[in-house]
Amino acid sequence: MSSTEGKTITCRAAVAWEPGKPLSIEEIEVAPPRGHEVRIKIHYTGLPTRLRLCITDAYTLSGKDPEGAFPIVLGHEGAGIVESIGEGVTNVKVGDHVVALYTPECRECKFCKSGKTNLCGKIRATQGKGVMPDGTSRFRAKGKDLLHFMGTSTFSQYTVVADISVVAITYDVSMEKTCLLGCGITTGYGAAVVTAGVEKDSTVAVFGAGCVGLSVIQGAVKCGANKIIVVDVNDKKEEWGKKFGATHFVNPSKIGNQTIQERLIEMTDGGLDYTFDCTGNVQVMRAALEACHKGWGQSIVIGVAAAGQEISTRPFQLVTGRVWKGCAFGGIKGRTQLPDLVRDYTEGKLKVDECKYADNSQPYCIFHKGCERELFFFSELDCAIALAPTGSHT
Amino acid sequence: MSSTEGKTITCRAAVAWEPGKPLSIEEIEVAPPRGHEVRIKIHYTGLPTRLRLCITDAYTLSGKDPEGAFPIVLGHEGAGIVESIGEGVTNVKVGDHVVALYTPECRECKFCKSGKTNLCGKIRATQGKGVMPDGTSRFRAKGKDLLHFMGTSTFSQYTVVADISVVAITYDVSMEKTCLLGCGITTGYGAAVVTAGVEKDSTVAVFGAGCVGLSVIQGAVKCGANKIIVVDVNDKKEEWGKKFGATHFVNPSKIGNQTIQERLIEMTDGGLDYTFDCTGNVQVMRAALEACHKGWGQSIVIGVAAAGQEISTRPFQLVTGRVWKGCAFGGIKGRTQLPDLVRDYTEGKLKVDECKYADNSQPYCIFHKGCERELFFFSELDCAIALAPTGSHT
Repeated sequence: MSSTEGKTITCRAAVAWEPGKPLSIEEIEVAPPRGHEVRIKIHYTGLPTRLRLCITDAYTLSGKDPEGAFPIVLGHEGAGIVESIGEGVTNVKVGDHVVALYTPECRECKFCKSGKTNLCGKIRATQGKGVMPDGTSRFRAKGKDLLHFMGTSTFSQYTVVADISVVAITYDVSMEKTCLLGCGITTGYGAAVVTAGVEKDSTVAVFGAGCVGLSVIQGAVKCGANKIIVVDVNDKKEEWGKKFGATHFVNPSKIGNQTIQERLIEMTDGGLDYTFDCTGNVQVMRAALEACHKGWGQSIVIGVAAAGQEISTRPFQLVTGRVWKGCAFGGIKGRTQLPDLVRDYTEGKLKVDECKYADNSQPYCIFHKGCERELFFFSELDCAIALAPTGSHT
Repeated sequence: MSSTEGKTITCRAAVAWEPGKPLSIEEIEVAPPRGHEVRIKIHYTGLPTRLRLCITDAYTLSGKDPEGAFPIVLGHEGAGIVESIGEGVTNVKVGDHVVALYTPECRECKFCKSGKTNLCGKIRATQGKGVMPDGTSRFRAKGKDLLHFMGTSTFSQYTVVADISVVAITYDVSMEKTCLLGCGITTGYGAAVVTAGVEKDSTVAVFGAGCVGLSVIQGAVKCGANKIIVVDVNDKKEEWGKKFGATHFVNPSKIGNQTIQERLIEMTDGGLDYTFDCTGNVQVMRAALEACHKGWGQSIVIGVAAAGQEISTRPFQLVTGRVWKGCAFGGIKGRTQLPDLVRDYTEGKLKVDECKYADNSQPYCIFHKGCERELFFFSELDCAIALAPTGSHT
């Protein structure tokens, strides 16, 4: 039993008090976990950085997320150690190394039982409102309740999550690595392997080669794809894409008068079997669909678009056999399948370290004493830059 | 050997000289079939009528089809008897009762061999240009070549089609019935059975209950769907829908402030497993997608939208697991699978006669001597009504 069990913990967290403003490092109170809840000491969390494509946190902070509410503790990609558990928790125990899951897995709801999706319905309503399943918050600062974010809130030294929102990692892997499996890598890899089910000898195009896109490439390689084309406006992505197994690279800003659809269709004798949008740009999503092969090409939307943005195309694209789909967290069931991905990493079958360097999306230490890294936030979405001092470790 | 074999036949046809004008009944010359071509004496052809949803001919006639060119012999749904065949034709013989296929099946191209689509690529380019595979036309009138339409041109007493665009029907079924399998019924039925692969005990919504929509219902019933909801602004469709096996009916103009998406989601505890657009209206296509169940709902676009119209939705709809797809001719391979549908009809497993009465889309006799029906064209698309006298039969 830990010394803090059953007690409120005072620790530091990055609080978003209002949209569009820098995060503020605050002392916050984290209440003990209630029934079927788990309190986690977060060791690493992913942060939205300039080159990362999964910028869900920055998006919400920008105030453009219609579901975004404040004040809130953001962060949806994190790894840590279980500090204490509430009544009825059986899937993790104190001391377990865990990854927080913004896509929970209850194994009881109609979604989990369907065998067709990784989306879980059990706590969707409260998670969307920023509260725990019982409708209340475990975070307080300056006399106010703070909202939870995506059921995870990893921008805090301690967080509380539902037991269905956490998975224990039994393999001996640094949390700095497993943290990245909490969103980006899993999302891309799963999109290729689970959602699309890329076939052997097929052709694949990946739009946007950040952490997610590179992970799509890894998934496509694993499935035996024959041709993997990276599409990115940044020429440096060619080298990274090829390190991950891509065979071709196209910079859409350097193809003259051709559209990227036209170029890709030309390169593949009619279009691709699978395309993946890892940008969140709705024009790119359209291009990705229209670059698909008539009759069977599938385009998978992975990126999160800005609020109010819509995708569109001529219905003829679908009538002639293209399929438009998407996924969250790659279609991966976190509790059931994430440990397999960690095992793949330990066996050298899944690149994790390289993703980190490829797009500078390093996981950041939360206030580790003596840590050389600074906690900072940088987003493309008009957020101010918040540069916080490295705090002392609680 | 027929007396006309090898000779040009002079017969009557409904010619579209220019967009937006009534069809004109003309004496035309139909040249003999060249290699791998078949000349058919058309006995019945489907016509675009007010209540039919498959109004492809009327659409082209209206001048709004960007691929539409003139003068042309329209008609894409027809049954007749093989009058003569060109060199190398082996799949039909003189005297065979046949259905014309606007979706050909060569069994040799990469589409046909893929096992993933019924679209055939072999004559796509020339079919799209309104000519036979060798680049020329078999129709002439008033000294001008007339274009072919969708590889079929059934608004003529005689037509010439590629051998891959025709299937012999060996069952003893009136051509008045088989004609309807040349488009509407097959399109709807196939969309449910082949394209969607409706699962047992699933929920289905059908938007638009004309010939195509009623046939979707038939397909869904065959697949064992549990709940089949008809959505139509015409209350009379409730009775027809239920005759075909629908379990519920909603008139979207009579649901107050709710959107049809909201109403359907409410009726199905979260949305439908499968939805089908049989209207060609892009707003309806959007509603059909958004009425799908999160995580797995599939929406199939069947209707043909007007030129320039686009479908749109928030990408969130796809990211949360809905799938947007479509099909032409229901995903049915005409030469391989159409005979099975005819057999199903003969065995009482497929309703054909009832479709006809449900939406007044009767197939029309082409100039049959003494036929009591008049050949007429009526379209919603601003075409004039052309009422032609019943001609004498050649």
